[in-house]
Amino acid sequence: MLQEHNCSIVRSDHFTDKTCWMLFLRICFTGATTEVHRDLHKALQVQAKKFQMHYMLEQAEQRKNIAILVSRNSHCLYDLLIRHKQGELKANISIVLSNHPELRDIADFFGIPFRCIAQPDGSEQDKKRRMEDILEDAYREFNLDLFVLARYMQILSDDFCQRHSDHTINIHHSFLPAFIGGRAYHKAFERGVKVIGATAHYTTASLDDGPIIEQDVRRISHSDSVKDMVREGRDLERVVLARAVRWHLENRVIIHENKTIVFI
Amino acid sequence: MLQEHNCSIVRSDHFTDKTCWMLFLRICFTGATTEVHRDLHKALQVQAKKFQMHYMLEQAEQRKNIAILVSRNSHCLYDLLIRHKQGELKANISIVLSNHPELRDIADFFGIPFRCIAQPDGSEQDKKRRMEDILEDAYREFNLDLFVLARYMQILSDDFCQRHSDHTINIHHSFLPAFIGGRAYHKAFERGVKVIGATAHYTTASLDDGPIIEQDVRRISHSDSVKDMVREGRDLERVVLARAVRWHLENRVIIHENKTIVFI
Amino acid sequence: MLQEHNCSIVRSDHFTDKTCWMLFLRICFTGATTEVHRDLHKALQVQAKKFQMHYMLEQAEQRKNIAILVSRNSHCLYDLLIRHKQGELKANISIVLSNHPELRDIADFFGIPFRCIAQPDGSEQDKKRRMEDILEDAYREFNLDLFVLARYMQILSDDFCQRHSDHTINIHHSFLPAFIGGRAYHKAFERGVKVIGATAHYTTASLDDGPIIEQDVRRISHSDSVKDMVREGRDLERVVLARAVRWHLENRVIIHENKTIVFI
Amino acid sequence: MLQEHNCSIVRSDHFTDKTCWMLFLRICFTGATTEVHRDLHKALQVQAKKFQMHYMLEQAEQRKNIAILVSRNSHCLYDLLIRHKQGELKANISIVLSNHPELRDIADFFGIPFRCIAQPDGSEQDKKRRMEDILEDAYREFNLDLFVLARYMQILSDDFCQRHSDHTINIHHSFLPAFIGGRAYHKAFERGVKVIGATAHYTTASLDDGPIIEQDVRRISHSDSVKDMVREGRDLERVVLARAVRWHLENRVIIHENKTIVFI
Repeated sequence: MLQEHNCSIVRSDHFTDKTCWMLFLRICFTGATTEVHRDLHKALQVQAKKFQMHYMLEQAEQRKNIAILVSRNSHCLYDLLIRHKQGELKANISIVLSNHPELRDIADFFGIPFRCIAQPDGSEQDKKRRMEDILEDAYREFNLDLFVLARYMQILSDDFCQRHSDHTINIHHSFLPAFIGGRAYHKAFERGVKVIGATAHYTTASLDDGPIIEQDVRRISHSDSVKDMVREGRDLERVVLARAVRWHLENRVIIHENKTIVFI
Repeated sequence: MLQEHNCSIVRSDHFTDKTCWMLFLRICFTGATTEVHRDLHKALQVQAKKFQMHYMLEQAEQRKNIAILVSRNSHCLYDLLIRHKQGELKANISIVLSNHPELRDIADFFGIPFRCIAQPDGSEQDKKRRMEDILEDAYREFNLDLFVLARYMQILSDDFCQRHSDHTINIHHSFLPAFIGGRAYHKAFERGVKVIGATAHYTTASLDDGPIIEQDVRRISHSDSVKDMVREGRDLERVVLARAVRWHLENRVIIHENKTIVFI
Repeated sequence: MLQEHNCSIVRSDHFTDKTCWMLFLRICFTGATTEVHRDLHKALQVQAKKFQMHYMLEQAEQRKNIAILVSRNSHCLYDLLIRHKQGELKANISIVLSNHPELRDIADFFGIPFRCIAQPDGSEQDKKRRMEDILEDAYREFNLDLFVLARYMQILSDDFCQRHSDHTINIHHSFLPAFIGGRAYHKAFERGVKVIGATAHYTTASLDDGPIIEQDVRRISHSDSVKDMVREGRDLERVVLARAVRWHLENRVIIHENKTIVFI
Repeated sequence: MLQEHNCSIVRSDHFTDKTCWMLFLRICFTGATTEVHRDLHKALQVQAKKFQMHYMLEQAEQRKNIAILVSRNSHCLYDLLIRHKQGELKANISIVLSNHPELRDIADFFGIPFRCIAQPDGSEQDKKRRMEDILEDAYREFNLDLFVLARYMQILSDDFCQRHSDHTINIHHSFLPAFIGGRAYHKAFERGVKVIGATAHYTTASLDDGPIIEQDVRRISHSDSVKDMVREGRDLERVVLARAVRWHLENRVIIHENKTIVFI
């Protein structure tokens, strides 16, 4: 099919999941005009129906629109904005959204709009609902493709997660499934582990239980305090989150049930 | 005190635990005759009483007696016996104890006595009790200093753990506290983690919850099956266990509550 | 072509080298009878000629014949024999060849023939020639597919390298291209590096300069002596060599000029 | 001595270099008033003379003055300024010096003075001399304790190196001693290595040959282009440089001949 249209495959990846005998393919090709693209879409639709297959056809040069959600911790925000400026992340960073005003200056410096979504009044549940309404508004306004939770520190509602699960990436400050929830470094310190980690995953309604995209770790010793772990952890978190976001933006990640296939 | 006896410090390590303001010291010195050793013991006893201090005075050249406990998996047994033969582990391996006869040939090849402790008859509890009686007998017979559970695959009784906790090292096939208990690689596969690990720890009555001595990890991907993880895990397990055993033998590990201080 | 013969692709890998615009493909498929295999060979020959393409068609279940070359260091030999016994390495280990008699017992224990190729008399050049003649004899006698230099400690002649370069794997005890040649850990110690490594590569006439298959490293510190490095290095060497050998046996490695493409 | 002055040791490290039988000690203590500090200085001077010993007595809370030297690459500059702002680096960043004007905005944003030292006219040697004169002026003006070459891309003169060797830290984009000099990622790509690295070291007159403080590596594969290596390398460089600078600022590094002792 690609051959007929004079397209050249520059890379292809293939994975057969032997637990369910499903086949996952990622094919990168060049030479597709808009017309070819439309024809391929049609042809794939037919094939997909015939073989009970899912497909996605994307143009690599088409930049995704992303929103970065933060609270008060700046390290992941800095990191993503710097990488974006250096051309590592092929995306439009449409907006930075935060439940605190502190990081506005950073967004300003990099020329990215910043919106504080803090809700001063109301019950916790009410405030959460109104904050998520703002997220939903931004989603429509900027035609967002991806939410990046760059140490956002808020648990999203089940409703929100269900709607946005496959395009919301969170960074958790432990090697999941160890140390789910808050105060992960404190828990690691108390358990006396010799390795700390960070995990980037898609968010689901079940806390810290979504499909894992990337994890990395660092050795620590008895002499490392919680403060030392937090410092080392910052290095882990930013690298792990950035990789996950980059792979997502480059359409390298396929979610299948509660796991990911990542064609690096 | 050491100076008076013409001893030279060749290494010292020092750690202040700021959560409880306890001080941990390890001092290596040369030049102590048997007489000096005895005098130091006396002097330390007095000091220890005065300052509510614990101390241990060991002779580095004094080899500890160890028993290796195995089941059917051979990789950790091979590894320990090879390292022992190459002079990496300064210890007498007094005996290999197993609840299965399969690994006898390996012990034979390395010239280490092998004892099968399998109990064909009786209730599970009864069999466990009798097996642990044999372990206790070996403990006395060989004047053992350390039990190494090299993939022993049996859960020890609370009684046994309480008596031997600070000189029984287990290797667990996950980065604890993730994936406690059996089938750790299966659980890792199901969770879709991107990193697998192994943990060496002192055994306590609470399963896989004892003080951690060493951990290490390896990256995996979506394409790794449970079988692949088991293979990669073998490399992790043997290295992590060997490090923990070596450090214990060299008196580098101090247990404090449910953690370890490891002076590497 | 595969479809016509009712073969199913279970995995495919693809790499386009953009420096020379060459395409490298590895396709694993099931369902090929002997007849299909023969037909595919014919068809591929025609295609290969037409497109100036190289191809290799192998049966995964066909075990390669390998010879392991050693000197006095046993750790890599043990490691390969244990992995072989555990089913990690799908190959026939036809013979262990050594310029020293010390490791015979190990080969015996694992039931692998051992041949000492030491030459007591003659000039160095003469001895080398005669030793390599024995290697050549073994190559024919056992229909060898691979020489594994498991710390062989002898430099092979240019002639030998040229004949066997693409099926001779060596393990070098540094992260090449640092510390080429002998005494690599001594050189690492003198330079004061904070990381040591090991490299598995195909041998070429130019010392330690052949295509690299795999490398790995470990952190060290100022307190590690050469002896400590040697000990840590053994762990690196055996893992790195085993991976390279396994990948070669599974036809995952393609040599292109002085580099490798490794489809892991 | 410390006991007499009511000082408490909170940490001590000890290393005996067995190649030269020299002893290296680092002792951290609390409770020293200015008077005690002065007394200790005097006492140590006497002892140092007596035992041919070198010593350094520093106040941990005394912040060192540092200058960051850059060219056009921003990643290490960003990283150091962010860490400084987050309190990871206990120092005064007195000035950013650059042979290009591009990074001025970054220094401005973080409120650090920026000085462009580019010399438009003159011979190469002449320009270098005048640039180094500006560095020397800054050294005196700000009472500098440390030059950090954060991808400065200029080779310093032998004279400059000799004067400032033990307080000038450079980040090199390879695991030294592999790939000395420029274009290290290109060289790594051409050699086909499977691991890339970065090295922080004190600068000496001999290019990339000074005492190594820290190194780290990352796995790469055949599919990584030079551009991919540069991207991955940025992550390595900034982490490795930041660790080396932090350790230097915390007086954890002792230079001995062409090596470092790092008490982490």
